[in-house]
Amino acid sequence: MTALEKLKARLDKNFHICVGLDTDINKIPKHLLTEKEPVLEFNRIIIESTAEYAASYKINFAFYERFGARGFDSLAQTLALIPSNVLVIADAKRGDIGNTSEMYAKAVFEELGFDSITLHPYMGYDSLQPFLSYADKINFILALTSNKGASDFEKQKLQSGKFVFQEVIEKVNEWNTNKNCGIVFGATKIDELKENISSFGNLVVLLPGVGAQGGSLEEVASSFNQAKNGNYLVNVSRALLYCDESPGFSKSVTTLIKNYNQTVFDLS
Amino acid sequence: MTALEKLKARLDKNFHICVGLDTDINKIPKHLLTEKEPVLEFNRIIIESTAEYAASYKINFAFYERFGARGFDSLAQTLALIPSNVLVIADAKRGDIGNTSEMYAKAVFEELGFDSITLHPYMGYDSLQPFLSYADKINFILALTSNKGASDFEKQKLQSGKFVFQEVIEKVNEWNTNKNCGIVFGATKIDELKENISSFGNLVVLLPGVGAQGGSLEEVASSFNQAKNGNYLVNVSRALLYCDESPGFSKSVTTLIKNYNQTVFDLS
Repeated sequence: MTALEKLKARLDKNFHICVGLDTDINKIPKHLLTEKEPVLEFNRIIIESTAEYAASYKINFAFYERFGARGFDSLAQTLALIPSNVLVIADAKRGDIGNTSEMYAKAVFEELGFDSITLHPYMGYDSLQPFLSYADKINFILALTSNKGASDFEKQKLQSGKFVFQEVIEKVNEWNTNKNCGIVFGATKIDELKENISSFGNLVVLLPGVGAQGGSLEEVASSFNQAKNGNYLVNVSRALLYCDESPGFSKSVTTLIKNYNQTVFDLS
Repeated sequence: MTALEKLKARLDKNFHICVGLDTDINKIPKHLLTEKEPVLEFNRIIIESTAEYAASYKINFAFYERFGARGFDSLAQTLALIPSNVLVIADAKRGDIGNTSEMYAKAVFEELGFDSITLHPYMGYDSLQPFLSYADKINFILALTSNKGASDFEKQKLQSGKFVFQEVIEKVNEWNTNKNCGIVFGATKIDELKENISSFGNLVVLLPGVGAQGGSLEEVASSFNQAKNGNYLVNVSRALLYCDESPGFSKSVTTLIKNYNQTVFDLS
């Protein structure tokens, strides 16, 4: 199955939640700390509690690299726990000159075996091309991010009248010859989402920022529904992972992701 | 010693070459392939051949991540081979929302123990701040990169009349309250270097692109000399690492870095 086939199978069920595995050992339920591999055990339970209802998973590399080679092992083991028919995104935000991006692409797509990655657009086309050449993967390129700093450069206006992030969206659409591109758009930026949604074309949209960062699932889902665009993933990390500190947290996580799906379904 | 103290000690000797350890197992001398750890053995010889003459080292993460957890170990072991009084830059090009950048900063500065890192500016101040809060490190933020794709976004003109990369340089100057910021500026972009050098202020400048990418050490060095700015590092990777395929390559590497230093010295 290609990355897009995996994704479409879930989107067709009206599932749009991406489970963000930003696992922080300081935030997981305390009873797991006696396990040999607490982070891995936590991830295993989260994946089992959500695999039937998630549209995709996103593994945040920083939370694993934090522990060096050991963390890299734990990242690979987490990936192995996810059913092979569900899309998994490497949230690695890479981007470098061609021969270096080629190595990052090999690391993420070949060595680790991810379906998808997040990328920085700053260095332009030839920094992305080594990733885009993997036709069966999905490459999410940062457009307008969920954080405050988005105003520093992404929301600067160009002489053409477009914002920098709009120029990124336009160019990514041009570069999408393999139909394997997507964009990252902050769920916290609802006004901009509504204003720009018609420019997304066939790009898959990954929206982080719901939950801890203050974005609203309802607003995102109704914006996409109004635009008759079903090609989106709403990432939830902290609000879902740490919704219950008790030993029975698995049930709470399942209930919550089902509620998220119901919310989206009710709006469609 | 802080990162800046390490760097200043070398710059004061008029040493400006940063040795880029983009080690590719397919390019190292063939006789090393029988070693147990060919990449590590190659790095050991390169470091011994250059440690007396280099201004700094730069380790390109992609070339190690390529091999997963094993590569991460090899990266850490390479770092351990570099004398502790020489600046080492993690060429990782990271940048993410605050709580994620915090984890990347911990990975690179604490877990691995680098002196310095390269960063993507796209997501703005709060994506950089977790790195900038380490006052004794040096953070090199991408301004104008050496590759062709620099024209896609970095060289787009803003309504203010500035290029995007000029806006980055201006903002990084503002954010340099801990005097621990630098910028990355492509050695392949000599005209832009000359036009913008007066805006660099106290920022340390890391210039990749000399050698395989076509940049000229002479032109870079004379531009900085003319501007009476000695605060720069010229990275050389492929052209230095693979200058000689023979078993005696160590001597060739030492000769070449001494020649580079002499070139810079002759121009000053």
